[in-house]
Amino acid sequence: MELWFSDYHTEKVKVSVKVQKQLFGLQTEFQRIDVFDSDEFGRFLSADGSIVFSEKDEFIYDEMIVHVPMAVHPHVKNVLVIGGGDGGVARELGYYEEIEKIDVVEPDRVFVEVCKEFFPDNACGLGDKRVSIYYEDGLKFLRLRQNEYDLIINDAIDPLGHNAGLFTKEFYGNCYRALKEDGIMVYQHGSPFYDEDEESCRVMHRKASHSFPISRVYQAHIPTCSSGYWLFGFASKKYHPLEHLDAKRWKERHIKTWYYTTNLHKGAFMLPRYVEDMLEEEEDRKK
Amino acid sequence: MELWFSDYHTEKVKVSVKVQKQLFGLQTEFQRIDVFDSDEFGRFLSADGSIVFSEKDEFIYDEMIVHVPMAVHPHVKNVLVIGGGDGGVARELGYYEEIEKIDVVEPDRVFVEVCKEFFPDNACGLGDKRVSIYYEDGLKFLRLRQNEYDLIINDAIDPLGHNAGLFTKEFYGNCYRALKEDGIMVYQHGSPFYDEDEESCRVMHRKASHSFPISRVYQAHIPTCSSGYWLFGFASKKYHPLEHLDAKRWKERHIKTWYYTTNLHKGAFMLPRYVEDMLEEEEDRKK
Repeated sequence: MELWFSDYHTEKVKVSVKVQKQLFGLQTEFQRIDVFDSDEFGRFLSADGSIVFSEKDEFIYDEMIVHVPMAVHPHVKNVLVIGGGDGGVARELGYYEEIEKIDVVEPDRVFVEVCKEFFPDNACGLGDKRVSIYYEDGLKFLRLRQNEYDLIINDAIDPLGHNAGLFTKEFYGNCYRALKEDGIMVYQHGSPFYDEDEESCRVMHRKASHSFPISRVYQAHIPTCSSGYWLFGFASKKYHPLEHLDAKRWKERHIKTWYYTTNLHKGAFMLPRYVEDMLEEEEDRKK
Repeated sequence: MELWFSDYHTEKVKVSVKVQKQLFGLQTEFQRIDVFDSDEFGRFLSADGSIVFSEKDEFIYDEMIVHVPMAVHPHVKNVLVIGGGDGGVARELGYYEEIEKIDVVEPDRVFVEVCKEFFPDNACGLGDKRVSIYYEDGLKFLRLRQNEYDLIINDAIDPLGHNAGLFTKEFYGNCYRALKEDGIMVYQHGSPFYDEDEESCRVMHRKASHSFPISRVYQAHIPTCSSGYWLFGFASKKYHPLEHLDAKRWKERHIKTWYYTTNLHKGAFMLPRYVEDMLEEEEDRKK
């Protein structure tokens, strides 16, 4: 048998992975969730037909969205993770002893259950005593919060689907308010390569750079993401991602990583000219 | 009509591009060459079924393999390009007035003719007065050269196919001898992500690091390459790719780029932990 899963990065480019077996498939209240087993990427989960993460490359995403802000902010106690129902982000956060509270806001309860069943190496992160899961809409959850978090991680995907509310101007404003005076927000910034992704990438940077005094973008190579090239946003009230990077302090924690290093941290903010030009154009625009 | 070109990155992962039309197809003495037109990548050329370059992303590869060594070496006069029959590397080299001689060694005459016909924006580089094309085997060409070049660019692809000779220990030794006492060699290092690519990546670094006193690896995101993540080798007799980077001098040249910046140059050498670990293991091995 030949069974291939195809992820359309655009209408005219797709990445296909040979599948051993489909392990799960269900339309939830929020999205279509499928789980597959493959030789090349191990188990992977797709939502509405797109790969959300795979066993083989989730470490890149989860390490980059957690350790970059954690190596910058000197005293993170309270963290909010929006989305993140798979537990990978919570798992990486769990390595930091000084963190006291990790709130995970995930609207789709089925998503969490599926990850607990099929991805225990991610979902173990949700078993940490400091984690509370809120099965709520991220935007609504945020509206009630003020001056509460040191770090907000927007782990939600798909700015056009059921998570669209998490990519609005209101959302960035609410994050700003929910953060303490030296808080940091990191978020998925999408891929800048294909023409059809460029606009959402531009809009995100425009909103973040107009809502936060410091707004920078960093990159990683994630094979299952569109074009293999993924951007993250770093929006901050006080700390600069390079000037306030404390490499010595981070290394002393002895956290085992497979992608992140404090050296790579610096390099991740050094972007290609075509990405730099795009971001600068948005910074220059009027609000 | 739906016509899809599929590039197998491994036996179990493929990237497919929707094609408007096949423009050319021929088995030459050396390889199967095909040219296609697509909406997403523009025209692209495949050799033996794998995409060699596309109009949409060749700038990344050509800029990174040329400007990185050129921003380090202070006085490049003579350059040898092995492979490079498409002309993209010669085009980027052409921007440097101080270069006096560009020798392009390409065994496949048909490859050059096809590029001249279908990719004039690359092939224009071969029209530079300083360029001489030698339709020869790269390894044989090198055997006769000694202390002649400031820069050697190994633009050849596929360490397992008809270019296998360009990935042997003899080849690295011959490059060393053909270089002047402060010469630099850069080369395609492949992609480190998939298991089946890892070994050739290891072998290349082992050979280079045992042949040259300075041997470093740098990265770029190239969507049409395996996993979208490509490495380059920088092997050098004297100059270090970061310590001897002269950003001021390079910027004063005012070369228009879409990917390369001197900032990105620095970041390109800051590699993920899993790549660093792999390279260090090879450096530690006995010869």
